[in-house]
Amino acid sequence: MRFAFRLYNYYFSKDRSLARRLRPLIGFTPSNISIFKLAFSHKSASSEKAYAIQNNERLEYLGDAVLGTIVAEYLFQKYPNSNEGFLTKMRSKIVKRKSLNMIGDKMGLDVILSEFNHTRISRSMLGNAVEALVGAVYLEKGYSVTSRFVVNKVLRSYVNIHELEHFDDNYKSQLLEWCQKNGQAVSYKLLARYKYEKRDRFKVAVMVNGKRLATADDFNKKSAEQTASEKAMVALGILSEEDY
Amino acid sequence: MRFAFRLYNYYFSKDRSLARRLRPLIGFTPSNISIFKLAFSHKSASSEKAYAIQNNERLEYLGDAVLGTIVAEYLFQKYPNSNEGFLTKMRSKIVKRKSLNMIGDKMGLDVILSEFNHTRISRSMLGNAVEALVGAVYLEKGYSVTSRFVVNKVLRSYVNIHELEHFDDNYKSQLLEWCQKNGQAVSYKLLARYKYEKRDRFKVAVMVNGKRLATADDFNKKSAEQTASEKAMVALGILSEEDY
Repeated sequence: MRFAFRLYNYYFSKDRSLARRLRPLIGFTPSNISIFKLAFSHKSASSEKAYAIQNNERLEYLGDAVLGTIVAEYLFQKYPNSNEGFLTKMRSKIVKRKSLNMIGDKMGLDVILSEFNHTRISRSMLGNAVEALVGAVYLEKGYSVTSRFVVNKVLRSYVNIHELEHFDDNYKSQLLEWCQKNGQAVSYKLLARYKYEKRDRFKVAVMVNGKRLATADDFNKKSAEQTASEKAMVALGILSEEDY
Repeated sequence: MRFAFRLYNYYFSKDRSLARRLRPLIGFTPSNISIFKLAFSHKSASSEKAYAIQNNERLEYLGDAVLGTIVAEYLFQKYPNSNEGFLTKMRSKIVKRKSLNMIGDKMGLDVILSEFNHTRISRSMLGNAVEALVGAVYLEKGYSVTSRFVVNKVLRSYVNIHELEHFDDNYKSQLLEWCQKNGQAVSYKLLARYKYEKRDRFKVAVMVNGKRLATADDFNKKSAEQTASEKAMVALGILSEEDY
């Protein structure tokens, strides 16, 4: 009996501790704490058999979609005169892996993750936990509360929108610089130019020392070269796959 | 005065006609008809200067995100025991261009599009109009009503989920078949195998007559080959870029 009591106490104190940590982050005390525990349980922590459902991957899948929509709407309202191209680019700057990893870090999710997982907490686990947390909030509270949580507690707290507007990940110049330093020759090749919905579309390849490392296509050559350069940097190991 | 009256009449009858056509499709009579008119106005119909905001591209951007989330949640609830990989695959089968074009066609959006645009109605305009319509419903009614509209009037009406479960776009075998017919040699090459979050990841290329047509990477070789084959079919013009 005493043992059961201790177990009970231990168990619920861990729940209470999670609820206490989450409150300032999400703005409310979760009532279904088990969903939130799941959000921080990496697949390596769950048994093989229960793999499919007893880890955060399903919540990540849901949270990724919900987060994408909330960010899409936030930008849609914030920039009433901007076109779809600008909005899409801004959105991907906010929800890309590297950015979510940084947000998870600033939210201090590493501390919570350490409590529920006995592996090393990688950068990408932080970003995944942000998505899973959004998924958990959505399941408990629905779309409007989740939207308020994301806008107030995530975007306004950790994302500098105005900085992002002017920030351009110039992967082409980063790649050129790296290649110069390392005595490698870079060149870009236009593979195809075709019409898509009456607009020109460009497919380019980036070659390093004559070897094609990556291709990309876009509505203008410059953007296609940027994307191809980014991919090439991943292939060369300059950019981490976790950040990509 | 008589002219103004006729103009007034003409103008409002066009709005009334749109509202009448939309009612059975979306389940309610739109109150802000101008958003819905915008949803069916292709960029070719708007003047260059007003390009950014007076066409359906912003609504498409918003609707694409909202639709993606609603489908994601629908599948999340429908398949409580399926893992993230299955859910992601199902989602992309539903929201991919080809599928949205088909849905727009079945909804009869071509008739509405013809009223608002004086260009030929392409397949891809149908899919874009589905997205823009979802965006318009969302702006007018918010998330819950949009979710009911998408689930009842789109998914349950035009998408055969059980067929999709078992349907596999086997692009590899389609490509092999086409190449055999046309006397072309196909081969697949494993370009790289690396670890990503403790899981193996495979990068493959598909070569037709020794020329590398496309590459793709995925968590297993088979899926990577499928995606690369699909891209190669677009490059060869077998699959239309509009459907991709």
